[in-house]
Amino acid sequence: MPAGELQYPSLPQPTASDTCTTDVEDEAWVWAQIKAEARRDAESEPALASYLYSTILSHSSLERSLAFHLGNKLCSSTLLSTLLYDLFLNTFSSDPSLRTAAVADLRAARFRDPACVSFSHCLLNYKGFLACQAHRVAHKLWSQSRRPLALALHSRVSDVFAVDIHPAAKIGKGILFDHATGVVIGETAVVGNNVSILHHVTLGGTGKASGDRHPKIGDGVLIGAGATILGNVKIGEGAKIGAGSVVLIDVPARTTAVGNPARLVGGKEKPSKNEECPGESMDHTSFISEWSDYII
Amino acid sequence: MPAGELQYPSLPQPTASDTCTTDVEDEAWVWAQIKAEARRDAESEPALASYLYSTILSHSSLERSLAFHLGNKLCSSTLLSTLLYDLFLNTFSSDPSLRTAAVADLRAARFRDPACVSFSHCLLNYKGFLACQAHRVAHKLWSQSRRPLALALHSRVSDVFAVDIHPAAKIGKGILFDHATGVVIGETAVVGNNVSILHHVTLGGTGKASGDRHPKIGDGVLIGAGATILGNVKIGEGAKIGAGSVVLIDVPARTTAVGNPARLVGGKEKPSKNEECPGESMDHTSFISEWSDYII
Amino acid sequence: MPAGELQYPSLPQPTASDTCTTDVEDEAWVWAQIKAEARRDAESEPALASYLYSTILSHSSLERSLAFHLGNKLCSSTLLSTLLYDLFLNTFSSDPSLRTAAVADLRAARFRDPACVSFSHCLLNYKGFLACQAHRVAHKLWSQSRRPLALALHSRVSDVFAVDIHPAAKIGKGILFDHATGVVIGETAVVGNNVSILHHVTLGGTGKASGDRHPKIGDGVLIGAGATILGNVKIGEGAKIGAGSVVLIDVPARTTAVGNPARLVGGKEKPSKNEECPGESMDHTSFISEWSDYII
Amino acid sequence: MPAGELQYPSLPQPTASDTCTTDVEDEAWVWAQIKAEARRDAESEPALASYLYSTILSHSSLERSLAFHLGNKLCSSTLLSTLLYDLFLNTFSSDPSLRTAAVADLRAARFRDPACVSFSHCLLNYKGFLACQAHRVAHKLWSQSRRPLALALHSRVSDVFAVDIHPAAKIGKGILFDHATGVVIGETAVVGNNVSILHHVTLGGTGKASGDRHPKIGDGVLIGAGATILGNVKIGEGAKIGAGSVVLIDVPARTTAVGNPARLVGGKEKPSKNEECPGESMDHTSFISEWSDYII
Amino acid sequence: MPAGELQYPSLPQPTASDTCTTDVEDEAWVWAQIKAEARRDAESEPALASYLYSTILSHSSLERSLAFHLGNKLCSSTLLSTLLYDLFLNTFSSDPSLRTAAVADLRAARFRDPACVSFSHCLLNYKGFLACQAHRVAHKLWSQSRRPLALALHSRVSDVFAVDIHPAAKIGKGILFDHATGVVIGETAVVGNNVSILHHVTLGGTGKASGDRHPKIGDGVLIGAGATILGNVKIGEGAKIGAGSVVLIDVPARTTAVGNPARLVGGKEKPSKNEECPGESMDHTSFISEWSDYII
Amino acid sequence: MPAGELQYPSLPQPTASDTCTTDVEDEAWVWAQIKAEARRDAESEPALASYLYSTILSHSSLERSLAFHLGNKLCSSTLLSTLLYDLFLNTFSSDPSLRTAAVADLRAARFRDPACVSFSHCLLNYKGFLACQAHRVAHKLWSQSRRPLALALHSRVSDVFAVDIHPAAKIGKGILFDHATGVVIGETAVVGNNVSILHHVTLGGTGKASGDRHPKIGDGVLIGAGATILGNVKIGEGAKIGAGSVVLIDVPARTTAVGNPARLVGGKEKPSKNEECPGESMDHTSFISEWSDYII
Repeated sequence: MPAGELQYPSLPQPTASDTCTTDVEDEAWVWAQIKAEARRDAESEPALASYLYSTILSHSSLERSLAFHLGNKLCSSTLLSTLLYDLFLNTFSSDPSLRTAAVADLRAARFRDPACVSFSHCLLNYKGFLACQAHRVAHKLWSQSRRPLALALHSRVSDVFAVDIHPAAKIGKGILFDHATGVVIGETAVVGNNVSILHHVTLGGTGKASGDRHPKIGDGVLIGAGATILGNVKIGEGAKIGAGSVVLIDVPARTTAVGNPARLVGGKEKPSKNEECPGESMDHTSFISEWSDYII
Repeated sequence: MPAGELQYPSLPQPTASDTCTTDVEDEAWVWAQIKAEARRDAESEPALASYLYSTILSHSSLERSLAFHLGNKLCSSTLLSTLLYDLFLNTFSSDPSLRTAAVADLRAARFRDPACVSFSHCLLNYKGFLACQAHRVAHKLWSQSRRPLALALHSRVSDVFAVDIHPAAKIGKGILFDHATGVVIGETAVVGNNVSILHHVTLGGTGKASGDRHPKIGDGVLIGAGATILGNVKIGEGAKIGAGSVVLIDVPARTTAVGNPARLVGGKEKPSKNEECPGESMDHTSFISEWSDYII
Repeated sequence: MPAGELQYPSLPQPTASDTCTTDVEDEAWVWAQIKAEARRDAESEPALASYLYSTILSHSSLERSLAFHLGNKLCSSTLLSTLLYDLFLNTFSSDPSLRTAAVADLRAARFRDPACVSFSHCLLNYKGFLACQAHRVAHKLWSQSRRPLALALHSRVSDVFAVDIHPAAKIGKGILFDHATGVVIGETAVVGNNVSILHHVTLGGTGKASGDRHPKIGDGVLIGAGATILGNVKIGEGAKIGAGSVVLIDVPARTTAVGNPARLVGGKEKPSKNEECPGESMDHTSFISEWSDYII
Repeated sequence: MPAGELQYPSLPQPTASDTCTTDVEDEAWVWAQIKAEARRDAESEPALASYLYSTILSHSSLERSLAFHLGNKLCSSTLLSTLLYDLFLNTFSSDPSLRTAAVADLRAARFRDPACVSFSHCLLNYKGFLACQAHRVAHKLWSQSRRPLALALHSRVSDVFAVDIHPAAKIGKGILFDHATGVVIGETAVVGNNVSILHHVTLGGTGKASGDRHPKIGDGVLIGAGATILGNVKIGEGAKIGAGSVVLIDVPARTTAVGNPARLVGGKEKPSKNEECPGESMDHTSFISEWSDYII
Repeated sequence: MPAGELQYPSLPQPTASDTCTTDVEDEAWVWAQIKAEARRDAESEPALASYLYSTILSHSSLERSLAFHLGNKLCSSTLLSTLLYDLFLNTFSSDPSLRTAAVADLRAARFRDPACVSFSHCLLNYKGFLACQAHRVAHKLWSQSRRPLALALHSRVSDVFAVDIHPAAKIGKGILFDHATGVVIGETAVVGNNVSILHHVTLGGTGKASGDRHPKIGDGVLIGAGATILGNVKIGEGAKIGAGSVVLIDVPARTTAVGNPARLVGGKEKPSKNEECPGESMDHTSFISEWSDYII
Repeated sequence: MPAGELQYPSLPQPTASDTCTTDVEDEAWVWAQIKAEARRDAESEPALASYLYSTILSHSSLERSLAFHLGNKLCSSTLLSTLLYDLFLNTFSSDPSLRTAAVADLRAARFRDPACVSFSHCLLNYKGFLACQAHRVAHKLWSQSRRPLALALHSRVSDVFAVDIHPAAKIGKGILFDHATGVVIGETAVVGNNVSILHHVTLGGTGKASGDRHPKIGDGVLIGAGATILGNVKIGEGAKIGAGSVVLIDVPARTTAVGNPARLVGGKEKPSKNEECPGESMDHTSFISEWSDYII
């Protein structure tokens, strides 16, 4: 294992601006990193070289690589890869904000997830990352009133990645969907920037009534695995939602909600306060002792 | 968005018979709606027209469209689409009850789910709907003692849609599997009519013992996201199971069970009574205040 | 149904050694069973015969059958089936321990899951079984520092089966992943032998910190559906984790933890003791009465 | 080789009616032969069993087998196998004359071509046979004024089999297209019954003028490899056209034309007379000595 | 048949400029015709509508339609459609002369081939047309010294269409490759404008020697089916080569060569003269009487 | 073009042993050349790198590369690539003579065809080379009495490459099938070593009679494009058959036959003598002057 370990050099230090702030990332720098990583991996692993060339090394830009990869992942016998590739490429090319968001998401995975060994690892293999980029395209189509196409894309993402984000949902940037399987985000949900969401998380509605009926997630929030947040509730900036929690209430900024039904750690009146940005620090469990105390 | 909104006209008023009653739907009417929707969408979105023609507009009946769509969705390199298409078409053609159930399920999605913009949206994109129709075919094969084929189909549905319904399970009609990812329904489970089941719901067994070991779900029940119901328990008509609940007990008709482990809202002795048919009204959260009161 | 029932003869009695002990299974015997089952099914169901011949009956050994089946299941347009087949075949051929583990897993499904009607049913249709065998190959690649390939395989398994096991995780043998959808197992997790894990189970980390940060699961443990175990905690041999539990604490051997957050049944001081090997007996619910008592 | 030879039993004696006459074949008998052959081959060659089951043994009739095989052979990413299968099956089912012709063609290959070891060999592997059956369907579509579909089918046959028969061309039954690569038959060509046509044969037009401009081939004609017959000329019953000939003239019944440009063997005035039905006897070379004499 | 006939209106009269002259075609007009034809066909034939939308009606320009169609026709499991689509689209977009040539070729088929019922018929179904457009792209790559890619494309065209044009060969515009199967054109061949070439035509080399070794075909030449022209010979403007001829000599302008070996009709000294442009008039057989006279 | 030209260095001088003699080639040397060529091309053309890695650079030996390439080229929806890959790999691995022959064929293309720019060009792109290697495998299966599989392979080669070589035909080594489209070689044909055969060549039978009925081609023979040789005739060593000839007679060693019907150049009594090995020198046309003289 040591030899293998050596090939992943330590990450360049994130600058101050990487913490909980909006940052215009250098797309070119990230793309250069991705190509360098892919080149190194292609050399060390000939069996994977073809895959790395087709998905990364043959492309002249991140947007082409991503359009190609998504087109091939999401195509089906009735929705051809060429059609999807074209759609993704045109959308990424015409809207730089989608590319900025993709770069922020790549950084989010790379800096927050200790299991993420490289940018290319995230680009190629993270279904949460890929589902999120496809969602951004579906969201753009939705906002252009191209709804049937947006919904077809939505459906393909749900089939292929088991990630179900309604095209109308608004998702910020710098998002980490870790593991991602089973994530469900409803039509009127809003997710801020620098949020980290684990697998099996639901941002669900309150039922049959239409209108604004899904959660609003503030910047820097961390939502643990299997958490279910229902209704038009507000999860404040920097809040933390414990794994497996069922949240039907507003959660104030920088507080933690846990349990089924979820309650605030430290009590409703004087809840404990989190660090600045749990969505980035990804500390799922520091509140265990507190919680245990609270429970017993 | 307004422009886009305009293209989805308000739904024809459901007649009185649409509420919690068995209704022989006019398959022809629904199919005509679907074709009209697909024609409208094909005109407004040329990029999707090919898909809409191949899946809907080139077919002369709902059963052919569905057989085609399922055959192409569920095929693999070792189970060819032509084989599956043939199997689906023959089964749908020979058993009208499967078509009636499909129509009831289409209506269920259209009337209960505010995010469902059209019948064709459900037909094409709802993995819960598609998984359920494939299950009905697998169930029929199972009941004809064609078990290896039923299980192969079961496996494909689990791979493609992440919906795992044992072919022996009995599922009623007018079912809405909303989002559907992660649903698991065991061998001896029974689900009544007009039930709504959210994603990640488990109707599971009690372990190694064989025999009748899975839940029995009454008509009109609503089961929230992530609920786990285990063992040969009875969930009475019109009951409601809260999201994230773990239910190991019988739940009387028209009552609500919540929590982990689940308890009846209002108490075991005099539980609160729900409206007639929560499976249709889809009210996931009206019991929040009650529950909160109950808990604290 | 009786006729169909007849075709599945009662299972040969497991010998004493089948209970919670390591057993060198006769791979040849299991393979002969699988071929006999497939031959019987091909004869009774011509529509499935082509599938059974291509996946089982045309192969001269279990490892070839498995390599073929996995290669075809996990391939994509950018990772060809021939490449994956080659990789699986070479790995299974060169490492007998992978084959022994596969046989133990087949037995685990066959003996523990009442819905498992035959070895071939498991081999062909159990996504948990298939995901686990692919993981073993990815784990071997990881341990040989062929990490990019291991991670690509990991990603395919997560896409196709919705089972996300990090290639570095150590998994014992005789494992039953029942239903399997949504299982997530992190990088430094360790799972012992003869463990049974239901769907939606998470063996997750504690957040951003790298290092040893995932659960250690002892031999013979049973983990119920939707349970979330977080952090470097130790779940002792023969312990049982209730469905939907959120476990952030060590669980002593042969005890049961339930609830969100999970507590020991019988109390922290003198917890109730389980039978020898719940991972094999698969009794999910015998502790219900105890638990109910405990809660109220 | 002897062992292998043994497995192909000598063919049942053709009855008198098999020579140069129209014969209503017993479709059922031929289909039973095909199934028996496929069963024997599947048993002796497990590597081929999956193919034989999917193409032949899983089907209940010749028309289903043929529709399946053609659908899978001729499909493309934009013309799906399910669509083609449906089209072929519906056409074969609704028009018994297509099935009769297919059976006559199977017999033609089996009795005339010494390299044809079985009916199933022809059904599965003879591109000339398959192209001809697809042509019959295209011809029917053409005659129903469904020309764009007929032409799309025509194009697929030309791509896949390198056999280019215009959908309007009229082809009799009991036809052997031997090897078949490169055959081109124009729009107004007519081919009688019991004709044998080798590869690279052209029945071409006279150029830009529209109208009736292609050859008319009488019953029982044999056309050698690479022969080019141009214009609205008449090749009389039982005539023989030498390999590589370029024919621009009428050829009387039972005479032989050879050379470039082609002349009648024996001279224009008193040409030599052939046996009754060279299209069936397939004697390509008995006229060599005559010809040589003629030339020198 | 009459009804079907009616749907193909008589072609607009070609202007004077359509005869044997270079003409800058109105790409937009032809594309509008193609769309109108496809729309009409999609309406009359729902089974084909999906195909027509994906190949033609969903595209905004001829170059996109052509790039899509060629990408899907020529792709393989190791050369993905997305890669080829990208390559074709970029090349067609960046070089207007390729589009002009494509339009001239479409007109050539439409005006010269009586079996060509519409422009869209040619665009979708004529393998000669499609092979020629793919060749133009390969030729461009070759001239940019991107030879390995040019040769890979060349190989795909030869596999898929059985048309083998070396990427270095220079092909003019307004070319009709009628039927096209088996055409072989060597490395140093040159083909002028408004040439018509039937199937099985070879423009071959003289053997092992490298250098300029293939035929030079003048403007307006007509080459009949199966003709073989070998060596660096010159076929003059407006010459005609009879079907099945083997030509090893220069053929003067507006003369006709026939036979094996080919000789000039009318004799070497005073050969008969053709009309202006046989490549357009496509008269394959007017010289028959002359020839017959000559021979005898 | 100069730059591109530069990248193909002049070929190493063939040693004396390369002319018309059997030579045990250094498989390793050729494989090293192929890898070096592919590496150079992958570097200069990123769009092709994925293809080059998957077909060549990821493989450890020529036999694996060839098995992979053929498996992917010849597979269909009913004959999977994994099955074919396995079959090819096992056959190439177990029979070194197949590998020796493949190397000799690679050398034949490289040294005789001026259009062949590299060994890898031949390996990847020459349908004649690929069809011939697949034939060798089919021939081996045939000789092992695995006839149905041999014929299935034969059929795939005929569909994909339009090259139709009966599995029973015996083909020597050092064979160049140039262009190859339309080649047909019958069941009892025999082809010696170092033969060159152009496209559209037929080695055909004499008709219905079974038994030994196809041509025997001596070592070093050259057969021109479109030549048709019929019946059990003997073409002597070093003979040359002119393009478009129709040969029904024995051709003595080192003589040339031309025309339809073919006659010996120089006359039957004292035919002109060729150089030693026309199959290698590939001189198609030096006999033109002679022939012309002969004719007139």
